[in-house]
Amino acid sequence: MVEIETDILAKNDGFAAANRARLAALRTLALNLVSSPGSGKTTLLCRTVEALSGRMPVAVIEGDQQTSNDAERIRATGAPAIQVNTGKGCHLDAHMVGHALDHLGLQPGGVLFVENVGNLVCPAAFDLGEAAKVAILSVTEGEDKPLKYPDMFAAAKLVILNKVDLAPHCDVDLDLCEANARRVNPGVEVLRLSARTGAGMEAWLAWIAARLEAATAAAAE
Amino acid sequence: MVEIETDILAKNDGFAAANRARLAALRTLALNLVSSPGSGKTTLLCRTVEALSGRMPVAVIEGDQQTSNDAERIRATGAPAIQVNTGKGCHLDAHMVGHALDHLGLQPGGVLFVENVGNLVCPAAFDLGEAAKVAILSVTEGEDKPLKYPDMFAAAKLVILNKVDLAPHCDVDLDLCEANARRVNPGVEVLRLSARTGAGMEAWLAWIAARLEAATAAAAE
Repeated sequence: MVEIETDILAKNDGFAAANRARLAALRTLALNLVSSPGSGKTTLLCRTVEALSGRMPVAVIEGDQQTSNDAERIRATGAPAIQVNTGKGCHLDAHMVGHALDHLGLQPGGVLFVENVGNLVCPAAFDLGEAAKVAILSVTEGEDKPLKYPDMFAAAKLVILNKVDLAPHCDVDLDLCEANARRVNPGVEVLRLSARTGAGMEAWLAWIAARLEAATAAAAE
Repeated sequence: MVEIETDILAKNDGFAAANRARLAALRTLALNLVSSPGSGKTTLLCRTVEALSGRMPVAVIEGDQQTSNDAERIRATGAPAIQVNTGKGCHLDAHMVGHALDHLGLQPGGVLFVENVGNLVCPAAFDLGEAAKVAILSVTEGEDKPLKYPDMFAAAKLVILNKVDLAPHCDVDLDLCEANARRVNPGVEVLRLSARTGAGMEAWLAWIAARLEAATAAAAE
């Protein structure tokens, strides 16, 4: 099994490198949003796309086992979106993302969001060619999740604690949650946010803008 | 890939059949609890074990990528618990459960709860030898999850909508959530519950008692 897994990941890494080159040529910042089901990724993404629209090109690749609900929610914001249904599959891989890029018609100098299948385990192992994985954790999930699913939190450059408006109604310790994320990934950045109320959105938009500037500067060198 | 997957599942089914025979000989009802991370499985399980203790033998197998936090929480209730760490793995398989059974010292005529790795995708495909899969969905995850992760909700005999105390604070339609579960699995039973407040616990305990009675009657035939 280990050999098979290594072989699958090696093939995936080849496709991921091709995606990364393609995205660099388009000066596009690609962010891979990963989380449990129901962390609020799509709502966050809709709010984010609305905030960025008009300021830069934005596009979305949506991954789900079934339905095109999420792509439809994104398209309602005006941004192009492609839905990838993984069927029995538990994660997006770089090959699927490459195909989606073929059809997305990316405009240069913007942001591509990839919303992965809701799964805190399997997507951690698959590089899609993104600049960063962003792990989104609903505060309703409890503060122990970074310790129980360490691969994902170790792979993330940013952790967003979402639905902070629900924190007063849950038995959750946000400081401990943040400390647990840093136990598995000492350098990780953490933002607290509520996509529903808008709290924390400005810091998230500033994080994206800084990353895009860095990506564009790197491409110009 | 399809052949490899078939081979893995065939091997798993062999181990699952052995577990099922072993559990039948012990007149033990085995329930496989499956959900996203953070749905409240462990809190529900602690409350359930406390309620059943003294009335029947209860034991627990806990699955997580890392940590033995959950087994410790269960042991604090007085029930025997074995923690299985899956490492990179995204689900428990029947072979792991068989090993855990070797060490658990099950008493006959009771209930074995298997708390799977928090993952709405992969555990759906793996029979562990259980009598039923119970899918737990936190109401904070939104009402669309049965449609987006249909394999799991199709595999479940019971769906528990947990954390209903948070429903008034979320934009969630519980009737629609229930209807979505029945769209992918017309015969599925659904219970609404809050492990935190105790609302709905009696119906869940009655469901377990009825299942245990049916399992014991079947074993006596």
